[in-house]
Amino acid sequence: MGSDRAPAVPDLLAATAELVAIPSVSHSEGLLADHVESDLRRVDRLAVDRVGDNVIGRSHLGRASRIVLAGHLDTVPANGNLEPKIDGDTLWGLGSADMKGGLAVMLALAATDFDAAVDVTYVFYSGEEVARQYSGLLQIEGAAPGLLAGDVAVLGEPTGARIEAGCQGVLKIEVSLGGVRAHTARPWMGVNAVHRLAPVLERVAAYEAREPVIDACQYREALQAVGVSGGLAANVVPDRATVSLNHRFAPDRDAASAEASVRALLEPLLDPTAGDRMALVESQPGASPSLTHPLLRSLLQATALPPRAKLGWTDVAFFAERGIPAVNFGPGDPELAHTADECVTRRDLDSAYTSLRDLISGGSLQAP
Amino acid sequence: MGSDRAPAVPDLLAATAELVAIPSVSHSEGLLADHVESDLRRVDRLAVDRVGDNVIGRSHLGRASRIVLAGHLDTVPANGNLEPKIDGDTLWGLGSADMKGGLAVMLALAATDFDAAVDVTYVFYSGEEVARQYSGLLQIEGAAPGLLAGDVAVLGEPTGARIEAGCQGVLKIEVSLGGVRAHTARPWMGVNAVHRLAPVLERVAAYEAREPVIDACQYREALQAVGVSGGLAANVVPDRATVSLNHRFAPDRDAASAEASVRALLEPLLDPTAGDRMALVESQPGASPSLTHPLLRSLLQATALPPRAKLGWTDVAFFAERGIPAVNFGPGDPELAHTADECVTRRDLDSAYTSLRDLISGGSLQAP
Repeated sequence: MGSDRAPAVPDLLAATAELVAIPSVSHSEGLLADHVESDLRRVDRLAVDRVGDNVIGRSHLGRASRIVLAGHLDTVPANGNLEPKIDGDTLWGLGSADMKGGLAVMLALAATDFDAAVDVTYVFYSGEEVARQYSGLLQIEGAAPGLLAGDVAVLGEPTGARIEAGCQGVLKIEVSLGGVRAHTARPWMGVNAVHRLAPVLERVAAYEAREPVIDACQYREALQAVGVSGGLAANVVPDRATVSLNHRFAPDRDAASAEASVRALLEPLLDPTAGDRMALVESQPGASPSLTHPLLRSLLQATALPPRAKLGWTDVAFFAERGIPAVNFGPGDPELAHTADECVTRRDLDSAYTSLRDLISGGSLQAP
Repeated sequence: MGSDRAPAVPDLLAATAELVAIPSVSHSEGLLADHVESDLRRVDRLAVDRVGDNVIGRSHLGRASRIVLAGHLDTVPANGNLEPKIDGDTLWGLGSADMKGGLAVMLALAATDFDAAVDVTYVFYSGEEVARQYSGLLQIEGAAPGLLAGDVAVLGEPTGARIEAGCQGVLKIEVSLGGVRAHTARPWMGVNAVHRLAPVLERVAAYEAREPVIDACQYREALQAVGVSGGLAANVVPDRATVSLNHRFAPDRDAASAEASVRALLEPLLDPTAGDRMALVESQPGASPSLTHPLLRSLLQATALPPRAKLGWTDVAFFAERGIPAVNFGPGDPELAHTADECVTRRDLDSAYTSLRDLISGGSLQAP
C-alpha cells in the first residue's frame, strides 16, 4: 500500500500528448488499446482483462464500494489536428479534450499506489463515436458483464473538470426523397430529388431548439443534418436524395416522443407517393441527472462547482439503464470536442485528477 | 456489288434487342465492342480498325464524298430496365433509344451490300455518357485521326428519326460550401455546411431557362443538380458540402458566357471567406444548326420533317469543331433517353434505316 501522503500529481499534459500521438479514430483503436493494456499490466494490484480493443483493470481490495471510471479510446476523424501540439500549459490535438485527457487521468490514477477507500474498475473502451452497434461497452457486456459491475460510474468525458449531470438522448434519422430519373437536357421529363432537398434542409436549419431545465440543469436540444448524398451520373436527373439527421433531446423526453417531434417537423414536406420516407436508424435514450448517491455527492463536493447539464449523449445512459448512477466528469472543454481547435489544459487535467484521487482515497467515508 | 433494287429492311427491332441484351454501361463497353467488331469483320468491303473499345469500319469505294455515321456504344446505368422487352413493335430496355437502335441501323447499313454513291465510315465508340476525358472519339483521334475524316457526319442519337440540328453546350460545375466542424450536441459552436446547401438548391430548382430560337430551331436551356454530398460522421457538424451542377446552354452562347450566367446566379449565395467555391469541372461548347451541306440537305429531304433543335449535348459538336458539318439523326424518342421507360419503335428504326440508305445510295447526286 502507498503512503498516507497524497503523491505528487504526474505530468498529465505530457501524458495526454503521448496518448494523442497514438491515432485511434473509431474502428482503429488497437494501437492505443495495446498501449493502455501494457500500462495497466505493470500495476500489480489490478486484474487486467482485454475484450477486443477494450481494456479493463480492476482492483480487488475488498472495499465496500466500487467506482467504475470509464473512458472511450476512440476519436472522431482528424481535422488537420492529428499531431499533438503543446504551447505552455495547453495541449491541442485530435482527442485532446474528447477524451484522451480523461484517459491520461485514469491511467495516472491506476498507476498511483495510494490508500484507496473504494475499489476501482478502470474501463477503456472502443467505438463510442460511431454507431451504437460498435460500442465497446456492449462488447464487454456481451463477453463478461461482471467486468462492468460497480456502485457508481464516472465517465471521463470532457466537462471542464466539473460534474455534468445526465445526458441528452440521441436519434439518428434518415430522410430519403424520391424523384423521377431523366436526361439532364430534358429535366422536365423527370423530378429532381436533389432539388427537393432544399425545403427539408431549410426547415432543419431553422429548427428552434427546446431548452428545458431539469433538476437545476439546463439542457439544450439540437437537430443537425450530418450527411447528405444523391446523384447517379453527370447526365442524369437524380431520382433519390438522402439526408442523415442527428437529433439531441433532453432527458425529459423519451426516444419515442423525440422521434414524433422530428416527424411532426418534417413529414409535412414528404410525399410518400413520390417515394419519400423517413426512417429511424438508431436511438439512444437520455439519462436524467442522478446526483443522490453518496459517492457522486462526494465527487460533487470535491469539485466545488454546481453541476451542469450534459448536452451530448454519453455512456452515463448505458450505466443508468443498468441501474448504476453515473456522471460525466473529465478534463477538457466540451464545447471544443469534435472541433479542429479542441484542446485540454494542465489545470483541467490536474483538477480532474485530484478530485478523483480524493474521491477514491476518501470516498468510502461517505459511501453507504 | 449489290442489285439496283433496294434490299428489304432487316428486322431492326430484333437486332436492337440483341444489342440491348449486351450490357454496355460506360467504362464496360468491351463486350459490345467485340460484338460489333465481329459483325463488321464479316463485311468484306469494310476496312475495320479497333482502338480500345472503339470500332471503325470504312468503305473504300473511291467515291467523291464520305459520310461518317457515328454512334456511342455506352449507356447510362441501368434503372430496372436492363433486360430488353419487346411488345408488339416496341422495344423497351436500357439503351434501346440511347442509342442501340441507332447502332442497329448502322450495323444493318454496314452489312447491306447496296450500290453506295458515297463512301461511308461507321464509327462505334465508347465513353459518351461520362466525363469527356473518357470519350472514345478522343481516343480514336489520339490514335489515328484519319479514321474520323469525312465530308459530313450523322450522329445516330435518338431524334425520333428526324433531324435534330446543332446541339446545346454543357457545363459541369461544382459548388462547394464551407462550414465549421463541431459536435452535434453543440452545433452553435460550428457552422453546418449541409444546412447551407438549402438556398443554393432552392435557387437551382427555381432556375428559369432561356428558350432561344436559332435558325428556326427552338433550344431550351436547363440547370440541374446532379449530385450532392457532405458529411463526416454521425456526431459531427459537417464543414463541407458539395453540389454538382449540369448546365445545358443554347448554341447562341459560348461556354464562357454560359459559365458567367451560372456564376451570376449563384455567387451571391457564396461566401469565399467561409471557404465557399465554385469550380468549372468540364465544358463542352454547343454547335449551331448546320444544314447547308448538300448531303445534309439531302438527308433532310429524305426525312420529310422540319429540323428540330437538339437539346442534349452530342458529338455533333466534336465534328463541328473539326470543320465537319454534322447532324443528329436516329431512331428513338429523345425525351425518353436516360429514363426507365426508354424504348424504340420498329417504325422509327425502319424510317431511320431507309432515310440513311437513300442518302448513301443516292446522296452523291447532290454532293458537291
